[in-house]
Amino acid sequence: DHGEKHIAVEKDVLYENNLLAARNRGFFDAKNILAINLVSSPGSGKTTLLERTLTDLKDTVNFSVIEGDQQTTRDADRIHATGTKVVQINTGKGCHLDAHMVMHALQGMHPHENGIVFIENVGNLVCPAMFDLGEKERVVVMSVTEGDDKPLKYPDMFHTSHLCIINKIDLLPYVPFSLDKAIANAKRINPKLEVITLSCTSGEGLDKWYQWLESKKS
Amino acid sequence: DHGEKHIAVEKDVLYENNLLAARNRGFFDAKNILAINLVSSPGSGKTTLLERTLTDLKDTVNFSVIEGDQQTTRDADRIHATGTKVVQINTGKGCHLDAHMVMHALQGMHPHENGIVFIENVGNLVCPAMFDLGEKERVVVMSVTEGDDKPLKYPDMFHTSHLCIINKIDLLPYVPFSLDKAIANAKRINPKLEVITLSCTSGEGLDKWYQWLESKKS
Ligand SMILES: Nc1nc2c(ncn2[C@@H]2O[C@H](COP(=O)(O)OP(=O)(O)OP(=O)(O)O)[C@@H](O)[C@H]2O)c(=O)[nH]1
Ligand SMILES: Nc1nc2c(ncn2[C@@H]2O[C@H](COP(=O)(O)OP(=O)(O)OP(=O)(O)O)[C@@H](O)[C@H]2O)c(=O)[nH]1
Ligand SMILES: [Mg+2]
Ligand SMILES: [Mg+2]
Ligand SMILES: [Zn+2]
Ligand SMILES: [Zn+2]
Repeated sequence: DHGEKHIAVEKDVLYENNLLAARNRGFFDAKNILAINLVSSPGSGKTTLLERTLTDLKDTVNFSVIEGDQQTTRDADRIHATGTKVVQINTGKGCHLDAHMVMHALQGMHPHENGIVFIENVGNLVCPAMFDLGEKERVVVMSVTEGDDKPLKYPDMFHTSHLCIINKIDLLPYVPFSLDKAIANAKRINPKLEVITLSCTSGEGLDKWYQWLESKKS
Repeated sequence: DHGEKHIAVEKDVLYENNLLAARNRGFFDAKNILAINLVSSPGSGKTTLLERTLTDLKDTVNFSVIEGDQQTTRDADRIHATGTKVVQINTGKGCHLDAHMVMHALQGMHPHENGIVFIENVGNLVCPAMFDLGEKERVVVMSVTEGDDKPLKYPDMFHTSHLCIINKIDLLPYVPFSLDKAIANAKRINPKLEVITLSCTSGEGLDKWYQWLESKKS
């Protein structure tokens, strides 16, 4: 049966991915690097959040960034402009980063010891949920323009994340989005999920994100 | 090699999908149904656009709707509230609808002859691009909150679509989005792509969408 064959291959792929994710985890551990996998729908604000963070904290933390996109180096160019070490991965038809791609990017970039490595995944609220990259923390970004039902409709990503950032709160006056409902929906899928609300544009709430980052660094 | 095995299975999957898409296309043809596959990032406004359309045109067109989501029947419930025939497909871990799912939904729902069948795909700007459902028209919705670079960064979806709807133009005053750039980026990927700008909230531009629908009905 074709369905069974497909599932078997998928298990192979995930098993191989898990091995390389474990390898990446060892690499990060050896260099005392905090690795963070940033996931979201296209356009929720992952790169904008990185631009703000890298600029605001550049004097206190050594950052390196891996950018994942189907095409273009636009996001890597934006990160490069902040003066941060960055590698772009283009996945072509691919819908997510995998641990193998991240392993090669790490070998090429020599990330700073004792620093933070951000991995911005392909904008996709579904497929990246299945692929461990070896990160310590998975951060899902949602924006208030997407609707407060997203955690219920795309549960895997919220289930596998540690922190949920609700971005673009400067737009709350113009969209029918209830913060309370969104947070309740997210916690229903994942009771342990932490939540931070902020706006990359106005800067409101960024301090809570910076404190969270500090608390995760050892 | 693992990579080659994965690609071979993917080709099998796409071949089988193409056969069933052709079957669906024959079904739609036999009943003189205009089938439209609605694709976008999560939360761009696909269901809201359907709610408006089904309500505004209910006296002139017989609509049926197939809803695709990982989880919940929320979108089908919203469509049902407009008085329209609707079937919900839940894909679970799956990241896109395929022609097989649509075939079964069609058999269960008995869509109206001479009408329009809308298929709302899973919110995902990557994977649904590869899966023909047998539709006549593929409509990609993007919203101005996602950024005007989306066509360049996620080209497959814009390359395979016939119409691009740029939604949420009521939010243009609050986001750094250039309509000119977005349209130029979309046409660079697909010179034949038609573009309509509108707001489901204010109603501005909906008339152009309704005219487009009318022009595609035979
Ligand atoms: N109003 C408002 N707009 C924002 C905010 N954060 C980001 N944006 C805008 O949202 C759009 C998308 O931002 P990006 O940072 O490119 O989003 P992304 O998640 O990196 O997008 P992909 O990499 O394509 O998935 C851009 O036009 C940003 O200016 C915010 O807090 N408020
Ligand atoms: N301001 C504004 N908000 C809109 C507009 N259209 C839709 N929205 C809002 O955008 C959010 C998402 O809308 P939906 O229609 O659920 O989006 P969707 O594409 O069906 O989402 P998924 O099915 O989860 O992929 C909701 O809060 C809508 O109210 C618009 O034109 N302007
Ligand atoms: Mg980005
Ligand atoms: Mg919807
Ligand atoms: Zn995928
Ligand atoms: Zn996928």
